[in-house]
Amino acid sequence: MMQPWNFLVIRDIEIKRRVKQEFLRANQEADRVSEDERQRLDQSLTSEAIEQVPINLAVTCDRSRRPHVPGRHTLIDHDLFVTCCALQNLWLAARAEGVGVGWVNILDPSVMAGIVGLPAGIVLVGYLCIGYVARFTDAPTLETVGGESRLSLESVLFYDRWGNRPPGTHPDERPTDNA
Amino acid sequence: MMQPWNFLVIRDIEIKRRVKQEFLRANQEADRVSEDERQRLDQSLTSEAIEQVPINLAVTCDRSRRPHVPGRHTLIDHDLFVTCCALQNLWLAARAEGVGVGWVNILDPSVMAGIVGLPAGIVLVGYLCIGYVARFTDAPTLETVGGESRLSLESVLFYDRWGNRPPGTHPDERPTDNA
Repeated sequence: MMQPWNFLVIRDIEIKRRVKQEFLRANQEADRVSEDERQRLDQSLTSEAIEQVPINLAVTCDRSRRPHVPGRHTLIDHDLFVTCCALQNLWLAARAEGVGVGWVNILDPSVMAGIVGLPAGIVLVGYLCIGYVARFTDAPTLETVGGESRLSLESVLFYDRWGNRPPGTHPDERPTDNA
Repeated sequence: MMQPWNFLVIRDIEIKRRVKQEFLRANQEADRVSEDERQRLDQSLTSEAIEQVPINLAVTCDRSRRPHVPGRHTLIDHDLFVTCCALQNLWLAARAEGVGVGWVNILDPSVMAGIVGLPAGIVLVGYLCIGYVARFTDAPTLETVGGESRLSLESVLFYDRWGNRPPGTHPDERPTDNA
């Protein structure tokens, strides 16, 4: 019951344009870090999406909302983590309604805080573009076009202790069913 | 396609007992911080659950897995956040299969790292107890027994800029439908 989240529904075209500009700026920086041509297509689509979708949604975490919840002194980022769970619930609910969601993660948090007026202590956890889409793809673009692949379930699974795999498993073998 | 997660399936009773001990220790500390009697019932159930459920699951984030993904230099915690989304997907999938999940957040990450052998750079994002339950409640225990209440949707919703509410909304009014 910590509920540290806020949802900032952005429909104002001027704010969307400022966010788009920030995305383009941060993306140029990202290009210098990662020279991955395959991801540029995706990023050009993202830039258009920010302006064109009906709703941009900033999901934030208020780090001071409930400081005395048990566990806050040990797992101090738990408030951020449950905010991500709320974001994912929203994402899945949207998808179930036929609404597309895209997460824009190439944005500088401090610039964003200025654009939408976030006070100190309010952390931007996710910035989402939300709208009806022409179609849903069966797999991520980075997989179908970009040549990336999903990690196999076996490769990310350990038993009892880190690094411990059951005898006979082959971490590089792709599973037939990821469920 | 960052996929920074690992899932550590803990079935070993000795490891469960060490985690339970760590929970009890951290919980004593938490009691000193928060003297909330209502939450003690919940915590005593948690302590038993750690030992008795068939599976404890540590969900971790490998912070070095894909350092060059675009956006990593701006939203540096994005890898932690998508790991939380994976955790929530697992939680909802389990629930849909009639399997109960409980998140234990009163644990010291460094003690936990020692118990399950996490190397440096591997962050414990969530520790879950997973098992079939006698029944699912309609509302969280902290709401039905603890007297806590959900925040209204209106109270956490802003438009275009932080703090901006549409005219005529009353943030303290409970909504009839939180969907």
